[in-house]
Amino acid sequence: MTISGDNSSNLIAIAKKTRQAALKLAVLSTEAKNQAIEAIAQALESAKEEILQANVADCQVAAKEGIAKPLYKRLQLDEHKLRDAIAGVRDVGKLPDPVGAVQIHRELDTGLILKRIACPLGVLGIIFEARPEAAIQIVSLAIKSGNGVILKGGKEAIRSCEAIVKAIKQGLSQTAVNPDAVQLLTTREETLELLKLDKYVDLIIPRGSNSFVRFVQENTRIPVLGHADGICHLCIDKAADIDKAIAITVDAKIQYPAACNAIETLLIHADIAPKILPKIAESLQAQNVELRGDERTRKILNNIPAATEEDWETEYSDLILSIKIVDSLEEAIAHINDYGSKHTDAIVTEDEEAAKTFLALVNAAGVYHNCSTRFADGFRYGFGAEVGISTQQMPPRGPVGLEGLVTYKYQVTGDGHIVANYTGADAKSFTHKNLI
Amino acid sequence: MTISGDNSSNLIAIAKKTRQAALKLAVLSTEAKNQAIEAIAQALESAKEEILQANVADCQVAAKEGIAKPLYKRLQLDEHKLRDAIAGVRDVGKLPDPVGAVQIHRELDTGLILKRIACPLGVLGIIFEARPEAAIQIVSLAIKSGNGVILKGGKEAIRSCEAIVKAIKQGLSQTAVNPDAVQLLTTREETLELLKLDKYVDLIIPRGSNSFVRFVQENTRIPVLGHADGICHLCIDKAADIDKAIAITVDAKIQYPAACNAIETLLIHADIAPKILPKIAESLQAQNVELRGDERTRKILNNIPAATEEDWETEYSDLILSIKIVDSLEEAIAHINDYGSKHTDAIVTEDEEAAKTFLALVNAAGVYHNCSTRFADGFRYGFGAEVGISTQQMPPRGPVGLEGLVTYKYQVTGDGHIVANYTGADAKSFTHKNLI
Repeated sequence: MTISGDNSSNLIAIAKKTRQAALKLAVLSTEAKNQAIEAIAQALESAKEEILQANVADCQVAAKEGIAKPLYKRLQLDEHKLRDAIAGVRDVGKLPDPVGAVQIHRELDTGLILKRIACPLGVLGIIFEARPEAAIQIVSLAIKSGNGVILKGGKEAIRSCEAIVKAIKQGLSQTAVNPDAVQLLTTREETLELLKLDKYVDLIIPRGSNSFVRFVQENTRIPVLGHADGICHLCIDKAADIDKAIAITVDAKIQYPAACNAIETLLIHADIAPKILPKIAESLQAQNVELRGDERTRKILNNIPAATEEDWETEYSDLILSIKIVDSLEEAIAHINDYGSKHTDAIVTEDEEAAKTFLALVNAAGVYHNCSTRFADGFRYGFGAEVGISTQQMPPRGPVGLEGLVTYKYQVTGDGHIVANYTGADAKSFTHKNLI
Repeated sequence: MTISGDNSSNLIAIAKKTRQAALKLAVLSTEAKNQAIEAIAQALESAKEEILQANVADCQVAAKEGIAKPLYKRLQLDEHKLRDAIAGVRDVGKLPDPVGAVQIHRELDTGLILKRIACPLGVLGIIFEARPEAAIQIVSLAIKSGNGVILKGGKEAIRSCEAIVKAIKQGLSQTAVNPDAVQLLTTREETLELLKLDKYVDLIIPRGSNSFVRFVQENTRIPVLGHADGICHLCIDKAADIDKAIAITVDAKIQYPAACNAIETLLIHADIAPKILPKIAESLQAQNVELRGDERTRKILNNIPAATEEDWETEYSDLILSIKIVDSLEEAIAHINDYGSKHTDAIVTEDEEAAKTFLALVNAAGVYHNCSTRFADGFRYGFGAEVGISTQQMPPRGPVGLEGLVTYKYQVTGDGHIVANYTGADAKSFTHKNLI
């Protein structure tokens, strides 16, 4: 890794400072961390006017520059949104502390004790677009999990982010947490530099469009928590209950079409398709959903365009649904494992064996039976917070709560124990006695 | 990712076949998997002569080509090594099944149930050098954890590996496990192609030299389980017990100097150095350990060469030890966090506070107090098997047993549940009641 120029050395200095502060933060008590989180909430309340004014300024510039409307809406931070974000900070304070949990406690031999203990990752790098209040949530989650955090907000939100981070640092200055644990980067060049800091940053969390997340994944050696695509499927088995099938299809498509856990493709068993497809189409079209179908679908539904190979691998994030008729459960599973993004896929069926097969053989973070894919969410799972949704195969997978921001270390304590005594002819044996 | 040419399409076909077989293997019962493992053990016993002859042929070619002596020793597979390897297969059969464990079981609302269940990763790619019996162990671990496995052995071991895999496949052909779940690649080009198959291979485990592991890490987007460097430190605090300090230093350096958990650098507190360094030097030099020291160390020990910046970042894997005198515990910790490889670092001290600080602030997979770093090992930790030792920050970290070969998925089962009912004015609440 070669880093050169002022920017990089500057950023390395910032990263080292964050790491240093994080090292101290890592060993704070739950109480001290919660006090810091409450201090952040209070400081944000005190700086409310300043933050809202900064946001107004951001919005004015953005409007002048002709920012797209959905982006503008996400940029806007009104009193209501800010109040919710501050309430969110206090909610994080109430979450259980993920640090310090003893996962393994084992006697290896008399006086030689192994413990596996949850500990913070170190420094998080958070890159987000638009929504300035994202900084508020992620900072409180970072403090709670004992991690330092380097934030990089979108350039359109720069004034808002600066006001927010200024308040947060001011709040922290009264607490056991060194304000250096929270840093804000402001230039675009710094994003690329941040992705190179694998020596100082332990996890990157990108929040933004699919293409943005993919760019981050492809340009860093630091582990990335997130997902590029959310290509979720709903499979209507031949033994599906028709009312459930219709309700779940509509919910999974239209309840929030831009969400990553909304469905993009509907797979219907050929035996039930003639009976159920017209009804589903009617319900969806009443909600302005555009349907695209394979050849057999188009023989049942008239006047819908053909779904091409490209449709099967597209996340529309919109009121569009592709439909394919399959001859067997196996064909449906194979289609999902081929085209899916390992996010969340569901089956509707009254046949318990078919459900069991689907849940076992579909390779995805979430496999659902008779319910909407839209439940795939950290809050709905009861995690209290969601750091991101991961579609990678290795853990953490699926909706990730605070536990995704910690790792563990093995502590071994002895009394002069050496390995030589456990090898060779007179080797001592290990006792391997679990103490929890 | 662009793959072209006959080799790649051939390899993709192999990978797809492995994946298909792995899908079936993933859902087998513990009993069926254990039967397959026993069948492997028996088939290897039956093919003993064939395997040993193949190895003799490999060794003859290697000797003719002037292979390095340590490599030759690792290549050699005698009756004793083979018997041990087969016993190891049966040991894997006795390990608890890592698949199917229910990690979370929670009611989200009446009739809407969330389960997080351990499941296989899918397909493992194992790249190893020399030691042909490594294939035997890793195949049995893969089967036990429900994963398919693509093996790539060193070219010097090609005949041995072919004989071993032939026997394994023949053994599996009598069982519920499709022999396609185990594949052997034989050409060097295939290694590079294998690293590109992120769509078909879920985890790469490289076994070989540091530079080889680093090459693999830098040339694949597939997660890699392993470590390049093992730069472990021993820190002798001012409150160290002298006898423990000497015994642990000697054990951690000489008990098996080529191991990744042997120490490379000794850090000694200035207050105790004049008293303890001459004794430690005497014990180490009696075992032919070459010492290199910083300036202050060389004032106490005469006639040892200077340790340079390069020494602090070198894994000698040999009877060489670099020594540095530090003025404080903090300086020792900072040195370790700067130069260490996050593998295993130990402190010798009778001061509980110093030990606590060291264990908390050193950032490594293993942090030890008053015992040898050589205990860092999956078998010694009581995992029953070791898949590898990981020095990454995210889990799995440190010595990794069978649990490193599984992931999890979230299963949600409902009865027509949709998200629309849990939002808006009349939103239902989640119950979030843990069932385990």
